[in-house]
Amino acid sequence: MRVTVWNEHVHERREPSVRKIYPEGMHAPILDGIRRVLGEDVTVRVATLEAAEHGLSDEALAETDVLTWWGHAAHDQVRDEVVERVHARVLDGMGIVVLHSGHYSKIFKRLMGTSCSLIWRSDPGGEREIVWTVNPAHPIAAGVPQPFVIPHQEMYGEFFDIPPPDELVFISSFEGGEVFRGGCCYNRGAGRVFYFSPGDQEYPVYHQAEVQRVIANAVAWCGGRSEPNDRPSARRGNAPRNWYM
Amino acid sequence: MRVTVWNEHVHERREPSVRKIYPEGMHAPILDGIRRVLGEDVTVRVATLEAAEHGLSDEALAETDVLTWWGHAAHDQVRDEVVERVHARVLDGMGIVVLHSGHYSKIFKRLMGTSCSLIWRSDPGGEREIVWTVNPAHPIAAGVPQPFVIPHQEMYGEFFDIPPPDELVFISSFEGGEVFRGGCCYNRGAGRVFYFSPGDQEYPVYHQAEVQRVIANAVAWCGGRSEPNDRPSARRGNAPRNWYM
Amino acid sequence: MRVTVWNEHVHERREPSVRKIYPEGMHAPILDGIRRVLGEDVTVRVATLEAAEHGLSDEALAETDVLTWWGHAAHDQVRDEVVERVHARVLDGMGIVVLHSGHYSKIFKRLMGTSCSLIWRSDPGGEREIVWTVNPAHPIAAGVPQPFVIPHQEMYGEFFDIPPPDELVFISSFEGGEVFRGGCCYNRGAGRVFYFSPGDQEYPVYHQAEVQRVIANAVAWCGGRSEPNDRPSARRGNAPRNWYM
Amino acid sequence: MRVTVWNEHVHERREPSVRKIYPEGMHAPILDGIRRVLGEDVTVRVATLEAAEHGLSDEALAETDVLTWWGHAAHDQVRDEVVERVHARVLDGMGIVVLHSGHYSKIFKRLMGTSCSLIWRSDPGGEREIVWTVNPAHPIAAGVPQPFVIPHQEMYGEFFDIPPPDELVFISSFEGGEVFRGGCCYNRGAGRVFYFSPGDQEYPVYHQAEVQRVIANAVAWCGGRSEPNDRPSARRGNAPRNWYM
Repeated sequence: MRVTVWNEHVHERREPSVRKIYPEGMHAPILDGIRRVLGEDVTVRVATLEAAEHGLSDEALAETDVLTWWGHAAHDQVRDEVVERVHARVLDGMGIVVLHSGHYSKIFKRLMGTSCSLIWRSDPGGEREIVWTVNPAHPIAAGVPQPFVIPHQEMYGEFFDIPPPDELVFISSFEGGEVFRGGCCYNRGAGRVFYFSPGDQEYPVYHQAEVQRVIANAVAWCGGRSEPNDRPSARRGNAPRNWYM
Repeated sequence: MRVTVWNEHVHERREPSVRKIYPEGMHAPILDGIRRVLGEDVTVRVATLEAAEHGLSDEALAETDVLTWWGHAAHDQVRDEVVERVHARVLDGMGIVVLHSGHYSKIFKRLMGTSCSLIWRSDPGGEREIVWTVNPAHPIAAGVPQPFVIPHQEMYGEFFDIPPPDELVFISSFEGGEVFRGGCCYNRGAGRVFYFSPGDQEYPVYHQAEVQRVIANAVAWCGGRSEPNDRPSARRGNAPRNWYM
Repeated sequence: MRVTVWNEHVHERREPSVRKIYPEGMHAPILDGIRRVLGEDVTVRVATLEAAEHGLSDEALAETDVLTWWGHAAHDQVRDEVVERVHARVLDGMGIVVLHSGHYSKIFKRLMGTSCSLIWRSDPGGEREIVWTVNPAHPIAAGVPQPFVIPHQEMYGEFFDIPPPDELVFISSFEGGEVFRGGCCYNRGAGRVFYFSPGDQEYPVYHQAEVQRVIANAVAWCGGRSEPNDRPSARRGNAPRNWYM
Repeated sequence: MRVTVWNEHVHERREPSVRKIYPEGMHAPILDGIRRVLGEDVTVRVATLEAAEHGLSDEALAETDVLTWWGHAAHDQVRDEVVERVHARVLDGMGIVVLHSGHYSKIFKRLMGTSCSLIWRSDPGGEREIVWTVNPAHPIAAGVPQPFVIPHQEMYGEFFDIPPPDELVFISSFEGGEVFRGGCCYNRGAGRVFYFSPGDQEYPVYHQAEVQRVIANAVAWCGGRSEPNDRPSARRGNAPRNWYM
């Protein structure tokens, strides 16, 4: 499985508080976690906003089975033609794992068809998030403690304006009493989408083993189809009688 | 619409603490709420465990469009043939609204096919429950504040061993940090099922206007089909070619 | 309930074969069916492509609870700002019933987030379509025969590139052996979407009573929420602790 | 992965027409297909009705990750305590693939909570079934032609009285015009269920490569969780505050 970890990579370069937590970029622990959990089964590369075509050329996407996406401050700087390209590639069978503030990325809104709005709270120091599994039969929950605690996080709360998930895996509670559907699966065309709400750039969430495990499981789930049987490129439009015989 | 409010009616008679909250039985405010919200559109009767056939004879069920169910201490005293009768009637088009500890009733477990287990906590005084709407387009959420607070409740937490709801309407959080899928819709055969997790007999939950509104909405939703097009009694088994022409 | 029947109204004016079937426009029998089934409960108006703002101004949409949509030859002539307006209004609580070739309309693709492609066959004379109910508990199936036959139709077949429906109500088979998920429900934001695949402009499908019944049921289902509890305009973004108390 | 192929094994022994198609039992090609597709990843054993405890003792189930089930003539001879044991094991994390007439088996009805009735037609010679993928992103569809044709089959038609599938993968059409949701996924507790409607004992359906591929894919999907995070045996009931810290 070939994975591309995409990171906006803006906060880490301009804000000392973030750089202190993620000196090598937020993509570094995300990539490390995928490698640690999935091992020999994956090759992982990094792509960022400032690369040519954001590191998401046709060739790069053709060689990507699963893309992970973290963005926040610079959603608007992602070029529309790249968004359309990623969108087409997902429908053609590529998996995508969208993280935290990526809920407002162009690609996630494009795939969901809704506003993807939510309520949030950025108190200094954050607040405790508890992540509960509500679908223990799902492979993305494999090996994930029930529940697990993220000591400090930004609150994300309902109503989260997404399509009802095809499969809901995790629900979070926050110290302030809010709840959030934070682990959501979607099948779209020949591809798969997973949204996972942890974590904010101000907290060391991606260094946490449980979070890394979920992301790695999600990569495995999203990339689990080696032989799609029905991709856009192979579909016919106008179909004569008995074309399938 | 013809509604039967079924109440085990055990706690209220033997425990002063419960009788104080529900002097006329827990069914009284449930029934009052349904009448207040749905008005002229409904006729409501009460049935309890100690009635002949628990008040759920073939005749009674034939004249019931929606049944609400509260039980707790005496699940085992509900006779199996009555459970099978209610089950068949649901598949034939009757709606059923199962409340709180009814998650462990024979009829709910029969309909769900799972253990329906959950985690719970009965601290004296209970704890604050906050009910969040995660599907604002659903008629059961109509007119329900986002969110609403139940000051004192027994905690019900995940993992709740139910089939993934066909439609998830409400998720609750509790002071202790747990979450719970507390408003769940199911289509089963020609009938509809709604599970709603508030409230425990130790607290005045069913006197609360928001809770009454949800129950009334659920009754309306479960009973919303006046002309089922496909009921067990009308179905054929062995079907010759072109039977439908 | 206030309904707007939107019709592209192109084929009927330029093609005699279509005008013969729909001398007053395809919107005429659609409107008649809604009125006949829903009666006093609805007011219905018609809007077409050539009207100013396609008859879908802010004011018109504000006074519309449910919009029905038929388009085919002129999808591209629908202005993008109108599409965005309709999209926002759906998320704000308006229902939308998308018909047949409307699967490729800008608004449906925008709401679904997928390509909405399918396979089709336009043999002269069409072929027999049989519509099967797979969710008899659903209000959209109320009073609809199981199954019903459309004698002549254009074939629409799988794979239909839509999100898995939140509720699947009808599946069609065609003489040529293809199947199609032709009755699909979605909850999006505070609004509801129903897609119904009959019927092509070359056949008198919208004059058929069963088809009219489904469309009227869908209008009732999509417009069933009189008091949305959570609409975009009422939502907060940044939320202080205990804002809900 | 450890697989148990369960076969009632009644028709093959008493009916020459069936024995001719399946001289070594229907389990033989099912087992062969699983081994051929999944190779080194699986060990497969066979269990039949006439074995002690139907070959499904506590020990046998504890060593089974996925169970496949074919039964028809002798559903009633399966002992209730074995059914309860299998049911508990599924909720505890074992996968189960239920085939064709297994829709009326005790275990499937127990898991579904519905009647599982359907319409059928057993014309001599059967009729052509075409299997369409409606979820190409699903791993059970991997490598399966879109569509594939089963030349001779018993007709199974809607309404099929099952819970709406958590994921619908295949829909079949039949020569007679009926449709059938023939590939259905369910998550139940910590376990997974797949129902696949081909094939009847009178036709060589299980010798067909596409059918074997689907069954093997389903075994892989149902058994895909090596580390369930939340199983009945590990769950607590009454939970003190902060038990998870």
